[in-house]
Amino acid sequence: MQFTAQQVAILLNGTLEGDPGVTVNQLAKIEEGIQGSLTFLANPKYEAYLYNTMASIVVISNDLELTQPVIPTLIRVKDPYSSFSVLLEKYNTIKLDKKGIEQPSYIHPSAKVGKEVYIGAFAYIGQNVVVGDNSKVYPHVYLGDNVQVGDNCTLFSGVKVYSDCVLGNNVIVHSSAVIGSDGFGFAPQKDGTYTKVSQIGNVVIGDDVEIGSNTSIDRATIGSTLIRSGVKLDNLIQVAHNVEIGANTVIASQTGVSGSAKVGENSVIGGQVGIVGHINIAKGSQIQAKSGINRSIEEEGKKWAGAPATNYTNHMRAQVVLQRLPELERKIEELQRRIQELTQLPEQK
Amino acid sequence: MQFTAQQVAILLNGTLEGDPGVTVNQLAKIEEGIQGSLTFLANPKYEAYLYNTMASIVVISNDLELTQPVIPTLIRVKDPYSSFSVLLEKYNTIKLDKKGIEQPSYIHPSAKVGKEVYIGAFAYIGQNVVVGDNSKVYPHVYLGDNVQVGDNCTLFSGVKVYSDCVLGNNVIVHSSAVIGSDGFGFAPQKDGTYTKVSQIGNVVIGDDVEIGSNTSIDRATIGSTLIRSGVKLDNLIQVAHNVEIGANTVIASQTGVSGSAKVGENSVIGGQVGIVGHINIAKGSQIQAKSGINRSIEEEGKKWAGAPATNYTNHMRAQVVLQRLPELERKIEELQRRIQELTQLPEQK
Amino acid sequence: MQFTAQQVAILLNGTLEGDPGVTVNQLAKIEEGIQGSLTFLANPKYEAYLYNTMASIVVISNDLELTQPVIPTLIRVKDPYSSFSVLLEKYNTIKLDKKGIEQPSYIHPSAKVGKEVYIGAFAYIGQNVVVGDNSKVYPHVYLGDNVQVGDNCTLFSGVKVYSDCVLGNNVIVHSSAVIGSDGFGFAPQKDGTYTKVSQIGNVVIGDDVEIGSNTSIDRATIGSTLIRSGVKLDNLIQVAHNVEIGANTVIASQTGVSGSAKVGENSVIGGQVGIVGHINIAKGSQIQAKSGINRSIEEEGKKWAGAPATNYTNHMRAQVVLQRLPELERKIEELQRRIQELTQLPEQK
Repeated sequence: MQFTAQQVAILLNGTLEGDPGVTVNQLAKIEEGIQGSLTFLANPKYEAYLYNTMASIVVISNDLELTQPVIPTLIRVKDPYSSFSVLLEKYNTIKLDKKGIEQPSYIHPSAKVGKEVYIGAFAYIGQNVVVGDNSKVYPHVYLGDNVQVGDNCTLFSGVKVYSDCVLGNNVIVHSSAVIGSDGFGFAPQKDGTYTKVSQIGNVVIGDDVEIGSNTSIDRATIGSTLIRSGVKLDNLIQVAHNVEIGANTVIASQTGVSGSAKVGENSVIGGQVGIVGHINIAKGSQIQAKSGINRSIEEEGKKWAGAPATNYTNHMRAQVVLQRLPELERKIEELQRRIQELTQLPEQK
Repeated sequence: MQFTAQQVAILLNGTLEGDPGVTVNQLAKIEEGIQGSLTFLANPKYEAYLYNTMASIVVISNDLELTQPVIPTLIRVKDPYSSFSVLLEKYNTIKLDKKGIEQPSYIHPSAKVGKEVYIGAFAYIGQNVVVGDNSKVYPHVYLGDNVQVGDNCTLFSGVKVYSDCVLGNNVIVHSSAVIGSDGFGFAPQKDGTYTKVSQIGNVVIGDDVEIGSNTSIDRATIGSTLIRSGVKLDNLIQVAHNVEIGANTVIASQTGVSGSAKVGENSVIGGQVGIVGHINIAKGSQIQAKSGINRSIEEEGKKWAGAPATNYTNHMRAQVVLQRLPELERKIEELQRRIQELTQLPEQK
Repeated sequence: MQFTAQQVAILLNGTLEGDPGVTVNQLAKIEEGIQGSLTFLANPKYEAYLYNTMASIVVISNDLELTQPVIPTLIRVKDPYSSFSVLLEKYNTIKLDKKGIEQPSYIHPSAKVGKEVYIGAFAYIGQNVVVGDNSKVYPHVYLGDNVQVGDNCTLFSGVKVYSDCVLGNNVIVHSSAVIGSDGFGFAPQKDGTYTKVSQIGNVVIGDDVEIGSNTSIDRATIGSTLIRSGVKLDNLIQVAHNVEIGANTVIASQTGVSGSAKVGENSVIGGQVGIVGHINIAKGSQIQAKSGINRSIEEEGKKWAGAPATNYTNHMRAQVVLQRLPELERKIEELQRRIQELTQLPEQK
């Protein structure tokens, strides 16, 4: 992809200063700008870079008064940060704008594939699968029988969706994520072995959800594991059977949510957190990385930390004292000695 | 799949009350029963649902006396829960009953594939591989050279089995699980770099093992990493080289077992547990989620918790006191002050 | 693969005692040596095995004086352990020596593939991709547009590399590892939803890097996520956007490094560690398994443990006392009681 300063200025509705014909083919941070790149200056702290950068185009504020001569072509806009975000998204949309059906791919005759889709080579689309308009199914994606994928979805290479699972619109799933694997359910037998409990439910994912690479979401035993609209899951997350993650909740990498737990909407959960099964977490909860949640949280909008988790402030205070524990122990021994002396004094007299 | 009440009654050897021709195509919990679904009532606590459910068929106990009129067709059996489990399994078996070899797939001429197998499109079966009867190899599965897969196994889409690994009978492996990747072995060099230690062993998996999605099991340096019969591993678990997991041991999601550790049979290990290398864990051990096991456990059948782990009861007690640490510290300071006063009293007199 | 004792002796430049025609087809530990296997005796502790082993060939030291008759053919060398390592590597090189392009595979006409490569069936090689000489791209590997892979690389089955990422020479990536998935970046909106921040950077991996199975490395928002030369990453590791891992740093399984963190070179990081974003970790740091690093580490070459992490020795001491907390609490209560008595004594008189 290559753009002229003129093209970018029109796109951003900005004012051009310098050579309108200079071309760029990448975006960069101002401190890393090289020739052929476009960058931006939003934070005045970085203004010094403007006068040294090798970038070909810099997007700056209408208000910025230059204090030295500049080499790159400038594009002046009202809000450089927002304008740069527009360019980022534009760039990404163009880059990922794949269309068409590559061969060899496997599309069962009973499947319904929408308009303007991309189906990569080696993608597998099973019986009765529905793929919505403008969706992208990258190479090595597996969509089991009866899977439904909405419009404008992107399933990157190697995503696996087991039979009967449902994805809404505008869903992005990253490579090697697994949706709909069996829940971990086994009935212990008298001889010490376990019998598998069949997992016949599915996973239902709302709209505008993003799921990270190597994340696993298990199907429900019966019914549905629910990932509500707007949820963002990072990489390597475990979501067990019959879990419900409330709308617009964000979960960082390597966190695990055990079976039948319900996480309230608009919660923010750090990385490597563990949540036990069959509990409810109130909406708006904020849970610090590495916490272990072993009971329901009923108060909405609070911060939690520790394993087992407690009120965030208490936890942080206890952690500080924890480091002084050996010293505290010595103090207690000293107190015991002194009290011993005190109580013995009368006897000695 | 669609069944009549008549067909279900015969399958369960139950007594039918109501319309024998009503049809169902899914199974549901009684509180979620919709038209066209079959559900069951085992727990008397849920009896009220029986009189309101929209389910088409409900399996109930021979002994249940109805106190109100019911709309669905009833099937009376001795033990509704067991009967429902039979249906779950039946449903799952029918749903997953794939057979035949889809194209394009890659089967090396030297490979031996059993009877009644399913080989999905884009599956890769390398040199000298053996796949037993009735086994299912889903799309995008990779079986490296000399891999052996027993009878009645199911390898879901995207499972990767490196060369020379061996799977027993009735083994289920979920999507994107990796069996036989290289153990993490490097010899530090004087210049700060590391030289790879070749990992030429394999992984041997017994019968009736289930392995979750995105789980990694590394091959041994020499010899075999051993997953004994009846073991159930959840998703996103790490099993390092030369580990041995004893028969019928169950491990929850995101736990890691380091190199050459031996976990005894019939143990139950929670999620996000870490087990260091070269230790033994006695059989029947129960390890709480998030624990860190840094030394061998020699007593059988005990409960452990914490990181580093200790006796479960002690750990839970210490955790409770931990939250009171700042308060304890204040008490100690108060004691010091009072003792100071006491010892100064005589002098002041 | 099958070798005669004669062939092995020549390879190791060793002296043969016994039948030069005996053949072996595998390597084993001396305590597990079976017929047809080659083993070695380096540690005198294991000498007893030499006189009982069923192995066909044993590599021993020039200096070893036999005290009993031995059955296997012996090959005497200066350093049996080093010689055995040579055989391990030789064995592995031969076993993994795949060449040629299997069909069906997908290689975009614009891609450049080097000499002596292996491209497995169902591998996907996108537009403008470069694959260097002697590299191996196993089945189901995905190389997105513009990806560069150096010479002598091995990408095992199911590795996914997103567009624009760059791998150096001698890089090994294990199955289902994902390189270049989108960083976890979302801008919170006033209505509680999140807007995706486009992630247009890439991942750049140096030479001699090994990456474990099911590990995720996210692409940078802008610029590059950097894995420097000589880094070894175990399985199921999370590396977030814009992270930099310094040269020759080793990270064990299930550890997570958050966005924009920089880990210094020659560090050793245990399993299940969490590192927060936007911090620096000094070179040569050693971090114990399960630690949580929540602030920059400035001193080089130190040991850290705990969550939040602290000096290793302090942490271990505090952990020991932690188990005695309930006892400490009782002691404090006892002290309070005794002081109470002491201060009341005068009054009672």
